[in-house]
Amino acid sequence: MSRSDASSTSLHPLDEALALVPQADGPAADGALRFDGAAHPAYANMVGPFGGVSAAQMLQAVLLHPQRLGDPIAFTVNFAAAVADAPFHIWAQPARTNRSTQHWTLRMTQADAQGAEHTVLTATAVTAVRRSTWSVNDTPMPEVAAPDEVARAEVRGWVRWIERYNMRPLVGPMPTEWDGSETPSLTRMWVRDEPPRPLDFASLAAFSDVFFPRVWRRRAVQTPIGTVSMTAYFHVDAATLAAVGDGFLLGQAAGQVFANGFFDQTGQLWSQTGELLVTTQQIVYYKE
Amino acid sequence: MSRSDASSTSLHPLDEALALVPQADGPAADGALRFDGAAHPAYANMVGPFGGVSAAQMLQAVLLHPQRLGDPIAFTVNFAAAVADAPFHIWAQPARTNRSTQHWTLRMTQADAQGAEHTVLTATAVTAVRRSTWSVNDTPMPEVAAPDEVARAEVRGWVRWIERYNMRPLVGPMPTEWDGSETPSLTRMWVRDEPPRPLDFASLAAFSDVFFPRVWRRRAVQTPIGTVSMTAYFHVDAATLAAVGDGFLLGQAAGQVFANGFFDQTGQLWSQTGELLVTTQQIVYYKE
Repeated sequence: MSRSDASSTSLHPLDEALALVPQADGPAADGALRFDGAAHPAYANMVGPFGGVSAAQMLQAVLLHPQRLGDPIAFTVNFAAAVADAPFHIWAQPARTNRSTQHWTLRMTQADAQGAEHTVLTATAVTAVRRSTWSVNDTPMPEVAAPDEVARAEVRGWVRWIERYNMRPLVGPMPTEWDGSETPSLTRMWVRDEPPRPLDFASLAAFSDVFFPRVWRRRAVQTPIGTVSMTAYFHVDAATLAAVGDGFLLGQAAGQVFANGFFDQTGQLWSQTGELLVTTQQIVYYKE
Repeated sequence: MSRSDASSTSLHPLDEALALVPQADGPAADGALRFDGAAHPAYANMVGPFGGVSAAQMLQAVLLHPQRLGDPIAFTVNFAAAVADAPFHIWAQPARTNRSTQHWTLRMTQADAQGAEHTVLTATAVTAVRRSTWSVNDTPMPEVAAPDEVARAEVRGWVRWIERYNMRPLVGPMPTEWDGSETPSLTRMWVRDEPPRPLDFASLAAFSDVFFPRVWRRRAVQTPIGTVSMTAYFHVDAATLAAVGDGFLLGQAAGQVFANGFFDQTGQLWSQTGELLVTTQQIVYYKE
């Protein structure tokens, strides 16, 4: 039984995953603060947890840090080793605080059988206080059918975390015939948390990793894969995110190049009203 | 007079900039190794050095580290504060070494007037041993005129580092009339080091930052800007880079969104024979 099922409250499983516990005595003199957390069974992947939620947990350490200045602008997380279905520590430190921007370094460690801590994730983040300026979105949301006109993708029989997202593919769904037939790598879909949950920066980090592997789409071959590094740029502030609420997002992802064991992915996520919330890229290992 | 002009050898100014000196006693027990270097006057920007060369210096610390495994795959550098035209330290540490991949954390520090060290750059990198696999480039090089059919951009009167690149714009050159007329943000150009220099991963990191600010192109307004974070994914190994030699690269960059003080840029760089060498993105502060 998952922690979600067992809980007597109605806390969303993502909020359970994001409930990191800061070190009781607060940040060290250099600002470093340790948070304790654990991989959440509701977001289990084939091996260990869904990387998007691990990323969200790293960003959450910044969001919960008492010395944080402003909202996330840039976030890069590196998947150094498989995260185990087990407790972890996240160390978050403001490496530089300026007048309106702040730079963060982060790492997640997990203990081995002998109790020694090893780095499984590294990350950097930039937060900033935004000001109102001339602005323009040069990547308008594609014209697509509304979410209620699109069928939800079949999610049974896949890994557990997939059930935590309501995905409604418009273009480039997961192949149903793994026959090696080559197609464009583009996927476009409506997506929201399942059950629905008001959007915030942590969940937006998780949404950035919600697309199935581009190499599977491109080749219709299920070669083993693993994300190596992911970057997300956030283009809205907390108030705008709050206004999006728990509605569907339109997500889009495609690969630019597949080369000797590593492919890249570029992606965008819009609110249903067409605001470009996040642009993201990642590079992914593939076996063959 | 620049160090390059003063030198009795014919060392390229970029090689002078990349000549970091490792701590004599080698890496610490945790792998951390300090390198000493300095901003190079031949790559001076308006304030401090060209960010692309600062990025290249950070990656160079990985390339020079005696414990490095494989070639760079992913590299993110965060510009935490203005780098001064002065000496610096770079600390490079392998945070995790796996069988065929390795994860790096890096920071650059500079001393203030009182001698206290402050972080000016943070970075992460992933290196890996590549294997030959199914591969495809889904982002073919645009069809453009050959480099010798395109005029070099006028570089006098701008900042010093611009003279260190031979840029031949095909689409979207630097505006000549700063009249606020809006245009697409796309720039496409041939570019190579000046004087020519054989390509390597460090110079490819610098090339990733060689495009003038997208907001200047988009608006024909010279609002103050500063890159906050840049990521580059490398899609070739050292042998392929060596084969490119000192020829021109085709570079392309565009912004996806300009929103309340920060815009993003996506970019690609191809060899003249059409190999996609690097895909890159950055997020940039703009004042108004």
